[in-house]
Amino acid sequence: MSVEESLKPLFSAITELKPSFIDRLSQAVSIPSVSSDESLRPKVFEMAEFLKSQLITLGAEDIQMRDLGIQPPPVVDPKLQLPPIVLARFGQDPAKKTILVYGHYDVQPASIEDGWATEPFTLVQKDDKLIGRGSTDDKGPVIGWLNSIEAHRKVGLELPVNLVCCFEGMEESGSLGLEELVAQESDKYFKGVDAVCISDNYWLGTKKPVLTYGLRGCNYYQITVSGANADLHSGVFGGIIHEPMTDLFKVMSQLVDVKGNILIPGVNEMVAPVTAAEDKLYDPIEFSAEELSQAAGADTGYFDDKKDILQHRWRFPSLSLHGIEGAFSGAGAKTVIPAKVVGKFSIRTVPDMDSDKLDQFVFDFVKAKFAELGTKNKLNVELIHGGAYWVSDPFNDNFTAAANATKLVWGVDPDLTREGGSIPITLTFEQELKTGVVLLPMGRGDDGAHSINEKLDVPNYIEGVKTLSAYLHYYAAGAK
Amino acid sequence: MSVEESLKPLFSAITELKPSFIDRLSQAVSIPSVSSDESLRPKVFEMAEFLKSQLITLGAEDIQMRDLGIQPPPVVDPKLQLPPIVLARFGQDPAKKTILVYGHYDVQPASIEDGWATEPFTLVQKDDKLIGRGSTDDKGPVIGWLNSIEAHRKVGLELPVNLVCCFEGMEESGSLGLEELVAQESDKYFKGVDAVCISDNYWLGTKKPVLTYGLRGCNYYQITVSGANADLHSGVFGGIIHEPMTDLFKVMSQLVDVKGNILIPGVNEMVAPVTAAEDKLYDPIEFSAEELSQAAGADTGYFDDKKDILQHRWRFPSLSLHGIEGAFSGAGAKTVIPAKVVGKFSIRTVPDMDSDKLDQFVFDFVKAKFAELGTKNKLNVELIHGGAYWVSDPFNDNFTAAANATKLVWGVDPDLTREGGSIPITLTFEQELKTGVVLLPMGRGDDGAHSINEKLDVPNYIEGVKTLSAYLHYYAAGAK
Ligand SMILES: [Zn+2]
Ligand SMILES: [Zn+2]
Ligand SMILES: [Zn+2]
Ligand SMILES: [Zn+2]
Repeated sequence: MSVEESLKPLFSAITELKPSFIDRLSQAVSIPSVSSDESLRPKVFEMAEFLKSQLITLGAEDIQMRDLGIQPPPVVDPKLQLPPIVLARFGQDPAKKTILVYGHYDVQPASIEDGWATEPFTLVQKDDKLIGRGSTDDKGPVIGWLNSIEAHRKVGLELPVNLVCCFEGMEESGSLGLEELVAQESDKYFKGVDAVCISDNYWLGTKKPVLTYGLRGCNYYQITVSGANADLHSGVFGGIIHEPMTDLFKVMSQLVDVKGNILIPGVNEMVAPVTAAEDKLYDPIEFSAEELSQAAGADTGYFDDKKDILQHRWRFPSLSLHGIEGAFSGAGAKTVIPAKVVGKFSIRTVPDMDSDKLDQFVFDFVKAKFAELGTKNKLNVELIHGGAYWVSDPFNDNFTAAANATKLVWGVDPDLTREGGSIPITLTFEQELKTGVVLLPMGRGDDGAHSINEKLDVPNYIEGVKTLSAYLHYYAAGAK
Repeated sequence: MSVEESLKPLFSAITELKPSFIDRLSQAVSIPSVSSDESLRPKVFEMAEFLKSQLITLGAEDIQMRDLGIQPPPVVDPKLQLPPIVLARFGQDPAKKTILVYGHYDVQPASIEDGWATEPFTLVQKDDKLIGRGSTDDKGPVIGWLNSIEAHRKVGLELPVNLVCCFEGMEESGSLGLEELVAQESDKYFKGVDAVCISDNYWLGTKKPVLTYGLRGCNYYQITVSGANADLHSGVFGGIIHEPMTDLFKVMSQLVDVKGNILIPGVNEMVAPVTAAEDKLYDPIEFSAEELSQAAGADTGYFDDKKDILQHRWRFPSLSLHGIEGAFSGAGAKTVIPAKVVGKFSIRTVPDMDSDKLDQFVFDFVKAKFAELGTKNKLNVELIHGGAYWVSDPFNDNFTAAANATKLVWGVDPDLTREGGSIPITLTFEQELKTGVVLLPMGRGDDGAHSINEKLDVPNYIEGVKTLSAYLHYYAAGAK
């Protein structure tokens, strides 16, 4: 029997189970598991318990609520417990392939005062939209995996793979403890995992499904310029001392040009050239400059061409100036000469940029430009946060399974996309488990994750469950 | 009888009254009349009442507590009353000259938690220092005038001039209502004023008294660059849109060079050249580059030469970059592309800079540099606060009287100084009353007005009362 044949009854069951699936998501959304709000930490734990009870009901084995200990500072409550990482398995058949699915059960903050049209922690169905905090990020996809199990059980279809679930509760707050756990469990709980599927991003637009095969990295720097030992009055000291702000502006203004080109020697030279094969991947992608203007709320883009826009968002580096710590930042007119200012900027990284070399290029350039100034102020430049880029072969077994599943459910080949931001856990799974990761999104580009009125379209939710299910079957059938 | 002869018994009385004078200052300091703290507003009123009772005791006439109405927003209490301006006269003899003395009875905030060694609102005498908030700024000088009256009464010496007192309670909070009152009363309460004396600044150093004949003005500008309609994520938008921060840094970095030279065409050309006579005024001034390094807490000055330092502080313009509103200003690493940023800078102005022309030069330059960028973001540049410079003839009758008084009491010719900052009321009195103003300071350069452990040295307080008194007598004797 072909994969498609065997999926027919499963898909019918998924369609029939729609009310039950929506009810399950509704229960999940009703628990305000906001990881960044210490006062709501008990709700994050409650959400973990909800998942555990669902997993038990669905027949999961070896369920483990992994204690991550106390949250490190800065915290208000020094004894604040981290929510557990929930681990579970469905099947341990050595004859089957093993897929690890990752998702997060914590959510962003939300309050009706922020401008929500409805109570954010009550899932409301309006037209064909399921509105509520976490609907698309990331409770929809997490519950989606559970729904798939339920549908398999209902039609008596055996899961085609061993499924390992890894659901964390701190994703919106830096994924504290996750990397360590993945490393520790790589040859224990996660032993034998053949492929990883993460459903925690979005279609590029609103109509065409995508698979995501790349993420930019990010190296975040700060430049500290210090002069006097306290802020000075510009009336008394203006015109007679080297002002740290003047020096900082001179240096930071030379990092990038007004068209976004990075001016630090050596950086652009590290970027892998676009191959003809890669360039062709951009041809079918549905996207336009208008969509960019709409998203930014202004017509301030550099490019009109689709490929230019997407490639500069996804596969070329960028440098952004974020702000200054220690300078006047309020409204009005304060006549201060700040004594010590810390300029912040970051570089989005892509293949084949070497992170250490990049740091060195940045440090050398900043120091050279500062030295040219001939100022008596002091300089320090440092990397304060780093995260590597990730790119996968979009035609490996894992992606092929996801592409086949998408094609079957949505009737189109998915666009192959990257993202400009980073999802650090992707690289962690790939490196620690030495296996491939596919990013298989459920929601659409306009879902408003992290915004007010976050939603998940009913078709994305229900067809999404079908896609996740079909992915498992195609992977089982096709993986070598 | 010479002025010096007639002052002898007065000076003896002042020396004898020292305990009473310290007690009067102690009472004044014990009232925490912090004008910027709404919760302490009743204390500002209490301080006004304290002055009124002192003025009554000392025989003042025509005492008026001038109601200034409700404080305009921003305020917490929409009905917050402004403290009164206290007006009083001693004598209305048409045969005598009339001197207006100005001071303020409000003070800066202070709390022991800020690092004060003693309770800030309790005047503590330690060695020869009177420590307490307001001791030098500006309760010492205000009470100093009252002490002078008391001493005259004690020895039965008639005041040689008609004295008009103008004491305000909002100086530390923008002198709300003062300018209007001075304008209104110019030919009423203040009619016939021949000269104005303000004792609300400091010696340049700690050893030599000064008279101050100039203040720089200040034009404060902001440059607004706006792009998207909301802050954007640099992962998603970095590399594809014009970033307002990049544009702002490009423009602001071109305003001034690293040695403090203003790069806006036309600005330096407006500055009056230093004449030989003016330059000679700097010869006797006691000051060294070491004092600058000590004040700044760092050796980051542009100049080693005394004249260079003082002239660039007092009589050349300067341009300082103060900060950015709307950008990331916190600690850590936030990967935001700010949608709208407002850069703040100010230019300290001196003779003969025309304020309107200066604005036009600034606007033209900023707009031209922005246009050169070829960005799609939007620019706005505006003046948000302006205050004119002030310079007096340091050899007129008013200054001569003050110089003679200083010489008699301290035994040296005072240094003739300017200040880099502004005291806007100086110009207001000069323009509205069409008369000269002298700035005759009581305290020393290290008094720490606005800082912790503010103090006034006992000799400065007591000899200061003698100086203020002698000033009145020399003015009466010498003014044409
Ligand atoms: Zn997420
Ligand atoms: Zn999220
Ligand atoms: Zn003052
Ligand atoms: Zn003050």
